[in-house]
Amino acid sequence: MQTKENIQNIAPYQPGVLKAGAIKLASNENPLGASPLALAAVKANLDKLQLYPDGGCVRLKDALAEYYGLTPEYFLPGNGSDEIFHFITAAFIRPAERVLTAEVTFSEYTFAAKLFAGAVDYAPLQDGKYQLAEILKKITPQTRVIFLANPNNPTGTYFSATELESFLKEVSGDTMVVIDEAYAEYAAAADYPDSLRLLKTFKNLLVTRTFSKIYGLAGLRVGYVIANPEVIAYLNKTREPFNVNTLAQTAAAAALNDGDFVRRSRENNAAGKKYLYAEFDKLGLKYYPTEANFIFVYIGQDCAAAFQKLLERGVTVRPMRSFGIRDAIRVTIGTPEQNQKFSAALKEIL
Amino acid sequence: MQTKENIQNIAPYQPGVLKAGAIKLASNENPLGASPLALAAVKANLDKLQLYPDGGCVRLKDALAEYYGLTPEYFLPGNGSDEIFHFITAAFIRPAERVLTAEVTFSEYTFAAKLFAGAVDYAPLQDGKYQLAEILKKITPQTRVIFLANPNNPTGTYFSATELESFLKEVSGDTMVVIDEAYAEYAAAADYPDSLRLLKTFKNLLVTRTFSKIYGLAGLRVGYVIANPEVIAYLNKTREPFNVNTLAQTAAAAALNDGDFVRRSRENNAAGKKYLYAEFDKLGLKYYPTEANFIFVYIGQDCAAAFQKLLERGVTVRPMRSFGIRDAIRVTIGTPEQNQKFSAALKEIL
Repeated sequence: MQTKENIQNIAPYQPGVLKAGAIKLASNENPLGASPLALAAVKANLDKLQLYPDGGCVRLKDALAEYYGLTPEYFLPGNGSDEIFHFITAAFIRPAERVLTAEVTFSEYTFAAKLFAGAVDYAPLQDGKYQLAEILKKITPQTRVIFLANPNNPTGTYFSATELESFLKEVSGDTMVVIDEAYAEYAAAADYPDSLRLLKTFKNLLVTRTFSKIYGLAGLRVGYVIANPEVIAYLNKTREPFNVNTLAQTAAAAALNDGDFVRRSRENNAAGKKYLYAEFDKLGLKYYPTEANFIFVYIGQDCAAAFQKLLERGVTVRPMRSFGIRDAIRVTIGTPEQNQKFSAALKEIL
Repeated sequence: MQTKENIQNIAPYQPGVLKAGAIKLASNENPLGASPLALAAVKANLDKLQLYPDGGCVRLKDALAEYYGLTPEYFLPGNGSDEIFHFITAAFIRPAERVLTAEVTFSEYTFAAKLFAGAVDYAPLQDGKYQLAEILKKITPQTRVIFLANPNNPTGTYFSATELESFLKEVSGDTMVVIDEAYAEYAAAADYPDSLRLLKTFKNLLVTRTFSKIYGLAGLRVGYVIANPEVIAYLNKTREPFNVNTLAQTAAAAALNDGDFVRRSRENNAAGKKYLYAEFDKLGLKYYPTEANFIFVYIGQDCAAAFQKLLERGVTVRPMRSFGIRDAIRVTIGTPEQNQKFSAALKEIL
């Protein structure tokens, strides 16, 4: 067979490790489970499995429109945000055109670029934080898409509304700026951007969000992009007709109304964050302040070895070696019991 | 925004029309519903929605391997066969390279080609049937992928084991041949190909199948490709890490064991086919003999108008105008009651 170099060069994604009986703090899932309203919606639609999904995601787009106070034409759902990133590179990247992102960030931006034979430039972080000024410096005439995670995965840091707006003013309208807000619902900082407010000013702005995190629906696969209707209509051309399954559509629409579950998830996360910060402080470990549901912490030893030792003690976390960092792990903020178990295991291995 | 011509030129897919209260014979869904074993598996996994799916589809690949008597390395599941077609064009089509298929066939092959800026050549059918000799004539040095639906959608016709083997012998190993067997489980003809038997001889052969049709799981989205392990390993590089959702994986693995449901579905289909053939014969309508769960029938009038008239009578079918045919419809074989209702409505409008 005749293979393509850009595909041969794709390195496989490294998913979080599952181990029977171990608590999983490796994939930033919601430790409280799935939204109860979403689960009820799934149960109410089990008689429709033999039918194709609504190819237009009409009810979900209507629900999103109502939730955000926009019209349905601003939304496009995907089979997880991962698929949305492919829509974007399919739509905007020709072979050898460039994607720009940060050095330590979500790996799927690079994958989406490579799938369409794009090249990727990386700007350095500082103290785990995106440096938007550094990103501006890396823009070339061939840069068609910029991916920015806010909060960033795996560091949990964020950039502010002021930083974002200043950045957008410097970027040409021919370069699309994608803000991946997978963890936005956890962000508590007062100056975290209300990025949707900027859509009308910046026609090249795209915001992605997901039901995999705070809504607890990672297993069903549904994310979405919010952008101006002309961008959405164009992206829609790259979409398979039935890309979001029936149960995902109905669960997601119901989850948007589950304010109680979102509130409880935020409260659990805030309490867990405070607890883990205190534990890390006691242990003298450096960590980055997080606006997400996970913490990036330096552990002063090889993370692959630490991962194994924690696994032996019944806890899975994410070693940061795949991000090029030798001595840090990323741990999902769990339930109080999970956090205590993780903390106890961590003390043992240090 | 700077758009890409190959994406701008994609025409949106036209899904089957849904109307409350109408019977839907438009999308070749299983009129008996979903596999009961699959449904039970879905119910048993509703406590896992917050967790990411098994990114490797390990259990599903194991189940497929056992079902087919091959090893798991021969299989790659996708978010419906639609996604599999994208894996294939992502892996093998560079801009301006060519895909070859038939004139009247499933539209997603063309879509998958255009997504990666490929060009598409079409060979004519004769009496609704693929002419593999005509397809051979259209092969160029730039032809990287050939898509063949067997049985064909929307005509329901098939090509035989002998025809397929003769064809494969004439195709270069650098051109991948994809046999889309979405409806294979319905095929009853004695000389319908056992294409998997040919995998060891033809390393460029890929066979796709789906759980959307006879297993009744169209709403969950899961199809798969069977090919030699080196082809599968290469295709796997084009895949998002969590492309098949948890419920789809578990339902599909369970459905493979649901021999009783498959048998009942085949029997219902065979009886419905016989009934509809007799009705069409009485009405003097020309149709193509089908090996699938639908029939392509010429109705002697404009199909768009006929579609509307049938809809008013509570039946949806698929008008063939989007395939460039003015005076034919494609009707899914339903339950006996649905077939009678369709037949009565058809008589009224002729």
